[in-house]
Parts: sequence; structure tokens; C-alpha cells
Amino acid sequence: MVQEIVTLEGHIIDSDILRRAFQRIVEGGGEFEVLRCTVGKTNEETSSAELAVRARDPHALDRILEQLSYLGASSVVKDASFAPAERDGILPDEFYSTSNFDTFVRLDGKWVQVAEQKMDCALVLRAGVPTCVKQRHVRLGEPVALRGPGIRVKPLERSRSKNDFGFMSNDVSMEVNKHVVVAAAARAMREARARGERIAYVLGPAIVHSGGDVALVKLVRAGWVDVVLSGNAFAAHDLEKSLLRTSLGVCQMSGRAVEGGSRNHLWAINAVNRAGSIRRAVESGIVKSGVMHELVKKDVPFVLAGSIRDDGPLADVIVDVLKAQEAYAAALKNVGVCLMLASALHSIAVGNLLPARVRTVAVDMTEALPTKLGNRGTLQAIGLVTDVGYFLERLANELQTS
Amino acid sequence: MVQEIVTLEGHIIDSDILRRAFQRIVEGGGEFEVLRCTVGKTNEETSSAELAVRARDPHALDRILEQLSYLGASSVVKDASFAPAERDGILPDEFYSTSNFDTFVRLDGKWVQVAEQKMDCALVLRAGVPTCVKQRHVRLGEPVALRGPGIRVKPLERSRSKNDFGFMSNDVSMEVNKHVVVAAAARAMREARARGERIAYVLGPAIVHSGGDVALVKLVRAGWVDVVLSGNAFAAHDLEKSLLRTSLGVCQMSGRAVEGGSRNHLWAINAVNRAGSIRRAVESGIVKSGVMHELVKKDVPFVLAGSIRDDGPLADVIVDVLKAQEAYAAALKNVGVCLMLASALHSIAVGNLLPARVRTVAVDMTEALPTKLGNRGTLQAIGLVTDVGYFLERLANELQTS
Amino acid sequence: MVQEIVTLEGHIIDSDILRRAFQRIVEGGGEFEVLRCTVGKTNEETSSAELAVRARDPHALDRILEQLSYLGASSVVKDASFAPAERDGILPDEFYSTSNFDTFVRLDGKWVQVAEQKMDCALVLRAGVPTCVKQRHVRLGEPVALRGPGIRVKPLERSRSKNDFGFMSNDVSMEVNKHVVVAAAARAMREARARGERIAYVLGPAIVHSGGDVALVKLVRAGWVDVVLSGNAFAAHDLEKSLLRTSLGVCQMSGRAVEGGSRNHLWAINAVNRAGSIRRAVESGIVKSGVMHELVKKDVPFVLAGSIRDDGPLADVIVDVLKAQEAYAAALKNVGVCLMLASALHSIAVGNLLPARVRTVAVDMTEALPTKLGNRGTLQAIGLVTDVGYFLERLANELQTS
Amino acid sequence: MVQEIVTLEGHIIDSDILRRAFQRIVEGGGEFEVLRCTVGKTNEETSSAELAVRARDPHALDRILEQLSYLGASSVVKDASFAPAERDGILPDEFYSTSNFDTFVRLDGKWVQVAEQKMDCALVLRAGVPTCVKQRHVRLGEPVALRGPGIRVKPLERSRSKNDFGFMSNDVSMEVNKHVVVAAAARAMREARARGERIAYVLGPAIVHSGGDVALVKLVRAGWVDVVLSGNAFAAHDLEKSLLRTSLGVCQMSGRAVEGGSRNHLWAINAVNRAGSIRRAVESGIVKSGVMHELVKKDVPFVLAGSIRDDGPLADVIVDVLKAQEAYAAALKNVGVCLMLASALHSIAVGNLLPARVRTVAVDMTEALPTKLGNRGTLQAIGLVTDVGYFLERLANELQTS
Repeated sequence: MVQEIVTLEGHIIDSDILRRAFQRIVEGGGEFEVLRCTVGKTNEETSSAELAVRARDPHALDRILEQLSYLGASSVVKDASFAPAERDGILPDEFYSTSNFDTFVRLDGKWVQVAEQKMDCALVLRAGVPTCVKQRHVRLGEPVALRGPGIRVKPLERSRSKNDFGFMSNDVSMEVNKHVVVAAAARAMREARARGERIAYVLGPAIVHSGGDVALVKLVRAGWVDVVLSGNAFAAHDLEKSLLRTSLGVCQMSGRAVEGGSRNHLWAINAVNRAGSIRRAVESGIVKSGVMHELVKKDVPFVLAGSIRDDGPLADVIVDVLKAQEAYAAALKNVGVCLMLASALHSIAVGNLLPARVRTVAVDMTEALPTKLGNRGTLQAIGLVTDVGYFLERLANELQTS
Repeated sequence: MVQEIVTLEGHIIDSDILRRAFQRIVEGGGEFEVLRCTVGKTNEETSSAELAVRARDPHALDRILEQLSYLGASSVVKDASFAPAERDGILPDEFYSTSNFDTFVRLDGKWVQVAEQKMDCALVLRAGVPTCVKQRHVRLGEPVALRGPGIRVKPLERSRSKNDFGFMSNDVSMEVNKHVVVAAAARAMREARARGERIAYVLGPAIVHSGGDVALVKLVRAGWVDVVLSGNAFAAHDLEKSLLRTSLGVCQMSGRAVEGGSRNHLWAINAVNRAGSIRRAVESGIVKSGVMHELVKKDVPFVLAGSIRDDGPLADVIVDVLKAQEAYAAALKNVGVCLMLASALHSIAVGNLLPARVRTVAVDMTEALPTKLGNRGTLQAIGLVTDVGYFLERLANELQTS
Repeated sequence: MVQEIVTLEGHIIDSDILRRAFQRIVEGGGEFEVLRCTVGKTNEETSSAELAVRARDPHALDRILEQLSYLGASSVVKDASFAPAERDGILPDEFYSTSNFDTFVRLDGKWVQVAEQKMDCALVLRAGVPTCVKQRHVRLGEPVALRGPGIRVKPLERSRSKNDFGFMSNDVSMEVNKHVVVAAAARAMREARARGERIAYVLGPAIVHSGGDVALVKLVRAGWVDVVLSGNAFAAHDLEKSLLRTSLGVCQMSGRAVEGGSRNHLWAINAVNRAGSIRRAVESGIVKSGVMHELVKKDVPFVLAGSIRDDGPLADVIVDVLKAQEAYAAALKNVGVCLMLASALHSIAVGNLLPARVRTVAVDMTEALPTKLGNRGTLQAIGLVTDVGYFLERLANELQTS
Repeated sequence: MVQEIVTLEGHIIDSDILRRAFQRIVEGGGEFEVLRCTVGKTNEETSSAELAVRARDPHALDRILEQLSYLGASSVVKDASFAPAERDGILPDEFYSTSNFDTFVRLDGKWVQVAEQKMDCALVLRAGVPTCVKQRHVRLGEPVALRGPGIRVKPLERSRSKNDFGFMSNDVSMEVNKHVVVAAAARAMREARARGERIAYVLGPAIVHSGGDVALVKLVRAGWVDVVLSGNAFAAHDLEKSLLRTSLGVCQMSGRAVEGGSRNHLWAINAVNRAGSIRRAVESGIVKSGVMHELVKKDVPFVLAGSIRDDGPLADVIVDVLKAQEAYAAALKNVGVCLMLASALHSIAVGNLLPARVRTVAVDMTEALPTKLGNRGTLQAIGLVTDVGYFLERLANELQTS
């Protein structure tokens, strides 16, 4: 058996760190001995624990220690090590893969916080700062951090104070009181605003189907929307509803009943593309209502990412998914609250780009979206199972928009 | 502020007890100070913690302490107090309500384990033993335990050993490896058998639709089924399939395509009721195949509970739901493993009657069943989202039935 | 090949009768020739068709003709034949099994409409009237109609007029415009009221979780609820919310967070049972708000059916499921509109008891409920996939309750 | 009122054309009179009907006639009219929008079949042939067909023969017998093979999670897979399973339990990209097993479309969604059967590109996928609700692969 001593610090009990550390050791085939454990006496004091971790060989021990490093455990305290990228987009095999938790790298004896924290990136030293860089953007020869000592993670801490946002994270049920979640979202939005942070919305087309667009327009108008991440479908449905609702006299929403009904969809895209872009279609008076109209009027930025199932698409859509990913990432700067509404594809994409500290609510008709987000590491998302139209109405109410 | 000192003991970190205790105190509006905390050094040693819990008034403190008592916390060590039942079926307002975790009551200075542990019962002193009794069965004047000191709960402990059953409890996802769960279920069944415990199955009609009946017959034949809890629908579908599959030459399963197709259902019930019971229909040679046939042949007991949507029903069905509940409870004696297969109604009913120590797997096409079970307190259930026919085939394979 | 001539009449094209007749013949292994087909020239005129149906042997032909009879096809015109019930609850094997469509039986050369139309019953001659009787209620020697000639069914006709209720039946999608369905339900309710018919509600506990109880109270108060069919869970949740919301100062809805939280549930049941019944608990001032309170105040009848998963249960619950089924059937007399809200068990039970002419809307978070209803023959139900709380708020709005 | 006479021909009753025509007229606010209706006497003969359609003004009548044209109705028989595209990618407002049904355009008095039939396209005259062209690919000045006379659609006809594929289309239920659908799929595959048509698979990552990859490898090996349409996730999961299963000694599938577990995902992508492509990774011996390995070995083409949530991505992934759409379209030439397995995004994309005559089965754990496909016009898809792993095992069995 080989052994290593590791230390855990922080709210390691409230935030479920110590239990998960035990679990990872056992899962990894190891054993542990608790050498010391002090628990913070009050809400303010943090706790710490020192564990002796043992495994049958150094390789197995390394794997366990790597797991523990994601829980913030520090063992041998020495500088992080780096190796150059083999080629553009090709990492050394021992690369460290990031989580969405705040991460620190030890350089010349000092712990430096990582820039642009997001999950599933390499850690590349750029201008002396360890930076989260997507695999494909790493350039030949850039120093890539390797897994092992010198990297520390600060996992998401669950708050000790009641009704707080962190308190509810990663919980999802159809049976939870929606009002509690709506109220928490509204409070988080107010707090983010007070801190000068921005509020992002991820939007799926079901918002238009469920009539949630009406409340969403109010939220945009009242200034509660700072940036929108979506795709072709939401924008095209919203524009089609705006353009064709009255002219044809048939219900746009019950599209199933209409043979060849997707013509309206194409017609709307054609009309907007003829104007040149959504902005121009609004400014030239073609589009007179709806969510996209309001976003343009209020100068709220929106990023529309292409997908292989798109009709059209609208001229505003970024059809290269990697460029779209970068545009999303850029648009998410300084976001403090993110509402993910009825869109699995775009919500997971955004979850991949957000640091875990962003307060996130995921609303959909089934548990599938929040469950998937949790499985993919967006552990901070509070799941709410309801009609997204209902959520938006109540949120607009709670924020007293009119 | 008022204060009370409480002690927690056991695997309070591995089993997530300490964290939940902190959470309950904060949720209840209280504060705490950790006076002492020792963590078991090895897998074998347990941990303990001493907390000072404070709240703004004695009433709020009582509510918090009650919550903590469900986590196994002991505070003032004195005998439990009792009050007589006001009338048949009417409890004193301060009654203690049981969980499905092993519970101990302090009587004359000694801790006595509760008999017939199950959730949502009163604790009644019968023949000197504190016993779980459903509200409606408590008789006038019987001593009913009150919430407060003298009652201790031993919450479910999650195992420290890998791949163990407890390790996976209350986890559910479509993305988990089914093989791991099937293997764990098979292992738990073998272990239960070795300990002389019984294996219970809760069965829904989708088993017949998904063709899982074939594998289930093998499991019965190989002796892996000790008791079946179900309703009218599963039995009637199984009997209809057995009786009418070949005689009419149409596919019984694709019933939707047949106008008036539920006649077959009624016909099967009529034929079996004419014989007098399922057992007699088997013994008289009317029913020659299927799950019910095999259960009769192998003398495996089954309990069929009535529901308001039943056709017929079969003569074997217990139409009084309270008597059916009691028959279920009686049939679940000494059960060590319970497989809940594609039936929300009966699975929740069985979950209400099982102590949490019974190893439980819940299989269904969506997360809804395991999520509901968890919400209602059947925390020990491992959820598996798959086709129940698939699960049964793989389980039969794993147990090498033929 | 044997042959028989059958005639179909009515809106056989609009109502999709002719197509389904063709389909049944082919599925049954038969062939057909269309001898004559006249299609109603205008909306008012009906159509008719005469088919020669052929099959390889008389038995196969009989099976096809039986299928066609459920579509309203008449062939040999002669009186229906009957055989006596063998014993109490035991039918002759050739019994005719009813659908929920209006049915006519030929007696002494005259077509007589069936009384108490509902699905999955035997047709028993009682006081000279062919009557739908559940299998178990047929008495020894009573004349039971046999399948074959002399029985005609009038299948559900889909309306030719736009936006009408029948127009939408048996359609379900998350993508339909909710407003259209809410408006159709409100219109159907007003029409039913004008015809002197009653409006029934089937209620599940999720109504309380989703905050739909507030709007439901308004609907009761405004006189839009004539009868309620439900179970123990809905009533107990509603009463618990009414009784304990303020006294304990914790959120009753987020019950998951509370260890031993189902105590509140039991406490509420205990308090109401101590009063003797829900009515007495309201009248004695114990219960001061909520849906059950309003039902009692407005003298709206409610029937609570027991199920095996019930806690308590409340004293009002009928624990014998067959008696509960009968009480449901009695309560559904003269119902013209039925709203099925978030309860699969009770909705299917009610669907089994309703003639197909009752306008039915089924609301739930997933397609599962409306799909199941359709599979089980409640073809008239319009499915609406949304949050039941949202539906109730919008319905109350549409009906201008306040 | 204005009036127009239209004619419908074909299996207009079996295929539910006449009923839907009536429905569209009423929905469009019109009225109709059936002037003549003859129904094909036998299975072989087709039927025909002549309707007088009336509406309040010519505009409304045009809208109704347009709807009827998608049902194959012909009215005024004259040549189709065209207008030039205004700019690259911009259509004249009166453009005709295609369905996925076989379409014919009248040019100089002759009916010419449309090339490259797919839905939601413009009809552009290219080299004298009316061709389905996506909006964005229409060039300035190209003649674009306008809605109105001269365009006829041949809607999907449902077969009159039992157990046939067309017979089951657009039906979906959890309660259908899976065996019937698996057998129909296998038969359709054999028939397609006999006709020299190809078999396409749309693959989602859940196939790997559910262990369906093992059966899928067998199907590839036995030659039952002609082309694969998928994305980065499926390929990366398959490669990760192949590369890392044994080297790390942890279960790749239960990834959730591993902190930082998505490192394995990135590692696999890195390793394959280092080789240059999936093909090179297989040929150089790095990838030794799995579905992608087998596809390369058997020279089965695959197209991987990028999406905004992709990790990596693999070098093989087409990151421009419009180019990916074109690559999908090219790969689908001469496809006769399409299996859509556990991937909503790619299945809808493929549905958009397939003519309705392609026999399509959509398999997933919930009704959501088949329902969405139907709503978006892929009406030919048979939905099967089961575990995709189960489906693949049974299909491989049915086709006697080994």
C-alpha cells in the first residue's frame, strides 16, 4: 500500500465535500484514515480535515488524488507542472481537464486563480495566467497544465442560510412549490443587478407555443433581460407569430392542423432575410411586436446558434457551431443569473460555458432537462418542472413588471 | 435564544447525516455550534459529534430537535412519553409519526427496538413493545408515543464499500449503466437468500405488454420469486394472454387496433371467475401458461389489491383497500429484497410498508416512479430507467435461470 | 370464402368510420367490395355505404362483423339474442361487451337505446330495457345480450364545424395552443349549463402542489363545479394546507426538505377524523379554507375513492373499490362536461364510467394521461399538456370568476 | 360565396385523404358539396371524389385550395406559374412550400415529378426539372414555383394489407407490442435490400449508455447498415468506451460518480484527433473495437454533424450546420429504410430531408420523439417506446446476425 496525506478546508460538511471525498476513495479502491477533523463552530468558521489516503499502487493512488483534487483537496504542495501542446488542438495525454468550479494553480509558490473558468477545458498559461481554453483552441507549444499537484478547486458551497439560492441547487421535482423557486429567482436577479452582474436567458421555441412570449416581452421592456442565447427556431417562431398572426386569420400555434403549414415559418424567415437581418426588419417596420422586436428596441444583445435541423435559417444565425460557441461564451461575460427555459440543446451548451457560481434556474415540462444538466456537471442549476409560460408570467409578476 | 445539546453518532459523515442536521437547523430558523466532532479513523470506526442547537423560542427549538431526532440525534436522554388514543383511530395531537428507518424507544431507561417498522404510523405500546400501528388501527386508550425525547432513529447508512447496494441508493438516471444495477440486484437477491430472507416483486401490467412475462416465468420457475404484490390489471392481462393468444388468432397486445377489444379482457376474467379463482383455473387446466399459472404451480403467494379502475375484477382481488393493505403488509414479512416493476400505485403502497433496510430496485420507463418513491420516503430504492422487459431478461440471465 | 353485406350510415367519412371499417376488415384477414357509397352533399346530409365483406370461414367473418358492429355497421337485420347469466357475476361466453358509444339493441323488431351507457359492461335486459351492467352485478339467470346481429353502435362523430369540441377530440400535444383548449372547455361548460347538464371534476393532489387550488376555489364559488371525483390524497393535501400552513410556519409544499414531514399529513387526517367527517370539520370551524371547505360550503357533492397507497384514510373515503366505483357512477349522472386534472388513476376510472358523448378534457404534465385514456377507449378526451395550476387559472379567467 | 370544383383520386378513404379534405375546408371557414364519390370496389381499385368547395371570398378560397393541394386535390387544371427569386436566398412571397410527399408540377401541359423530394423547400426549375431547393440555395432569378394551380401532391397512402409498414405509420404508444414493430422493421429492411435501396441509421449517444452498441456492431458486421447520420456525442462516447474501458479500470458508463469524469471524453477525442481522423485512428490500431471501428472496417459511410454543445469536437465533425445538412442530404440518396434511434436533434434533421415514402422507425424512451416527428411532418415514422438497447438486440436477433 502507498499513502499520501491530503487536507480539505472550507465548509466541507455543509457542502458535502467530506462525504464525497470518502466516497471517491472507496470507489477508487482505496482506504483512508481520518488523522484530524475540526468542524467550524459557527456559521462563519470553516472546517478542515486531514486524511491519510492509501491505495494498492502509486497509479491507483494518483487516480484517487486526482478525484480528490476536484473536491478541493490539496496534498503535496508544489507547483503545477506543464507540458507543451503537441500540435494545434492536440493536448499532452496527461492534461488536466477543468470543472466549472473556481480553480487555482500554483505557479512559483503562489496560488493564481484561473481565468475564464468553465468546464471541460485545458488550462493553458497565457500571459502568465492559467486560462481555461477549449481543446481545439490550444496552439502548438503552449504550456498545458498536467493533472497532479499544484491545482486546487473550490467546489460549490451550499449556503448555510435558509431560502438562499445555493441552498436549493441541484434539486428537482414536480412536487416542489413553484412559488419558492420563482421568488428565489427574482431575488437572485435583484441581487445580481445590485452587484452589477448581468442576467442571461436561454430560450426555446416552446416559450412561443405556451404563450410565455407575452410575459417575456414585459421582462425585456422592464429591463430584466441583459442577453439572450437561443437558436433559429425560437426567433423564427416569434417572428412568424408577429408577422402572420393577423394577416392570415388562422391560429399560427395550432400548426399541426394545417397541411403544408410550415410555409408560414419559411415565409417569415424569407421576409426577415429580405430586410437583411432581424434588426433591420424591426427598424424598417416589418416586425412590429414580439420578443425579438423588443430585444432590438431595447438594444439587448442576442446570439442565435445554428443547428442541423434549422429551416432557413434567419440571416442572424451563426451556422458554424464553434463560432456560435465562442459567441455564446463572449456574451456570457459577467453574467450572474442564468434562466434556462425550455431548450435542452442550448441550455446544455450554456451550462458548459458557465462557471458554477452563476445562479441558474432550468425550467421545463419534464425532469429530463434539469437531470441532464446535473449529469453533465451544471450542478448549480435549480430544476423547476412546470409550463414555461406559467413560470414567465409569475416571474414577471414577482418583479412587478407591467 | 434557547439552547439544547444534541449528540449524533454512527457513520454520520459517510451517510450524510451531519450535513443534513446542519441543514435542518438552518431551515428551522436556528443556529448551531459544533462543540466536538470526532471522525472514525478507519472504515470500521464510527464518528460522533456534539452540537449546541439554538433557536429563538422553545417551540421553534422543539421543532428543530424533532427533525434532528429523525436523523438519529439524541438530546435530553429520558424516557419517551405516551398519551392514550382518544378514540379508535384518533391519536393525541402530539403523536410521533414514524419513518421507515429502524427506531428505538426509551422505556424505563432502556432503548427498545420498534416492532414492524414502517413509515407514517403511530408508535403504540403493545405487550410492552413499541409497535408501528397505522392510525386507523390504534384502539381507544392504547398508549401512543409522543414526539420529543426518548425516541431515536437509525437512519439509512450508505455503505463505505464499493458497488454495494446501499452505495447506489436514491440515485436515478437514464444514463446509468443498467448492467451495474442488474448485477447489484442479482447479488442482493443471492445474499438475501443466503440470510433466509424473502424476495418480493411488485408487478404492473406493462410487464405483459413488454413481453417481460417470459423472463418472469423463468424467474418463478427457478425459485427467485417468493411473493408477488400486484393488482387486478397485471393478473387479468397475464391470464388473457394465456387464454386467448392462440384461440382468436389476433395479436392480444396491439389491443388498440381492435374495436371493442377489451371484450377479451372481460372474457378472461369471466372464464377464471367461473372456475372460482386463479388457483382453481390453473388446477382445472383452464389456464396452462403465464406468470399466474407459474405462481400457482410453484405455490408462490400473491396478493391482488383492488383499485377503482378495475374491470371485473378477478375473484382473487381484495376489493377493500385497507384489507388489501394489511394483506400486503402480512405478505412482506421477512422480505430482504423488493423489485418494483412498472407499477406506480402498488410500488408506492409497498414502499409505505417496507422498512428502509429492505434492498429495493424500482424499474420503469421514466424517472417519475423512482422520483415519487424518493419524495414519499422510500429513499432506499435504486431507480432504473429502462424497459421492464429488458430488465427481467437481463436479471434472469444474470441469475442463470433457463 | 363466405360473404355478408353490411351497411354503414351517418357521417362515416368525417368521423373516420369508413376508413376504420376498411382497416378492421383487412386486419381480420378479410376482403371487401364497396357495392355502393353515397356521400352527404352538404354539412347536414349524412353518407352511407354498402360493403360486401368476405372472409375464409364463417368464424373469421363473425369476428370481422363483430368489429364492424362497434363502428355502427349493421348486417343481417334481426333481433338480438340473449342467454341467461350462468351464476351471479358469471356471463355466458358469447356475451356482448359494450363500448362507451351510444348503443341500440333490436328487440321484437324495434331498436331500443341502451340505458346507462358505459364501456366494458354486459348488456342485460332489465325491465325490458337493455342496460349496461358491470359483469359482477349481473345476477343468475338474467338475460345477457350475445354478440352478433341486433346490436348497433353509433360511434363518436367528429363535428364538421370549426373550433367545436368534437373537432379536437383525441388529439394531444405539448405544442398545441393552450388557449384554444381552455376556450373550448369554457364554451362546453357554458353549453352544458344551458342544457341543464352537470360539470364534473376529477382531481389529483398535484393541483395542490401547483397552487391550482386557489383558482379551483374560485370556480367552486362561482358555481362552475357540480361534482368532484377524487381520492384520499387530494382531500388530505388540501386539508393539510388549510390546517397547517400558518401554524407551523414552514412551507407545507416543499415537504421533501422536512425529515418526518408526512407527520403533517397524518395530523390533518387525524384532526378531520376527530371531527367525524370533512363536512363536520368545516361546520365546526376547524377547516376554514381550501377546496374541500368550499365544496362543503356550496353543497357540491364529492366522492373520495380509497386506494392501497392511502394514508389514514379520511373518514369520508370509500375503502371498498367496487362501492366507490358505484358511487362514482351514481355521481356522474347527467354530466355533460368532465375535466380530468392531474390524476391518472381516477381519470381512467371515470373514463370507464362515462358515455363518449360527455365532453372531456384531460390535463397533465405529460402526454401519458391522455394517451392512456385514448388507449383505454376514452377517445373523446382532449389532452392538454400543461401545468394544471396554469390551466385552472386560465379557465377561471375565461369564465370570469373573481 | 365563390366556388371551385376539385377532384381527389387514389385510396382517398383508406389513406384518410377525404376526411382530412373535409376537415381543412371547414377549418378554413368554407363549405363543401360532394358532387360525386366512387369508392374503389376492391383492394386494387382506387376511389375518386369531386367536391364543390365554397368560401366567402376568393382569398379564403385560395387558402383552402392550397391546403387541399397538399392532399392531392386538383382543381383548375393549368400549368404551374413561376416567379424569379428576388435575390440569392430570397423567394417571391407567393412561393410554394414543399411537403415530403411525392409532388408533380404541370409544365407545358405535362405533369412532371419533382426531383429530390423533401419538405420545406422551394420548387425551382433547374434544367427543366422542378427541384426541391432549400430557401438559402435558391439563386437570384431562378424560377420559383408559386402556390396555386399546376401542383399536385400524392399523399402517403396507408396500405390495405395487414401488418404492412404503412399500416402502422404515425402510431405511437408504450403499450404496443414491440415484437410487431421489430418484425415490421426487419421485413422492411429485407425488402429495401431486395429493391437495391439503402438502410440508414440515425444514432444518439444513449445507444452507448444502454449497451446497444454491442448489437449495433453485429448489425454493421452483418451488412445491415449502409449509412450512419449522427453527431459528435455518439462517436465520442463510442470511442471513449473503446479506448478507456480497460485502461482505467473504472466504469465508463457510470460517469456521474467520477469527479472531473468528462476528462475521459476529452482524452478520447484528443487521442483520435492526434491520429487525424476516426478512420486513421482505426487504421493505425489505436481504436480496436466499437461501432465507429466497425463502420470504418466495413467502409460504411458516416456523417457527423456539429452542435453547439459539442466537446472537442472530433476532427470528423462538420461544424458548419448548413454544410452538415447538405452532407446528410447527400448521404440519404436512395435510402429505403431509416431507423432513428434515441436522438431527437438528428432525427428531426433527417426527417426534414427524407421523402415520406422512406420507411421510418423512431425508437426512444418516451413518446416525445415520435410525437415531435409527427408534428413536424415526418408522418411516416412508426414510433416505438422502449429502451434502444433492447430494440437493437431484438432487431439483430430477428435478422439472425451473430
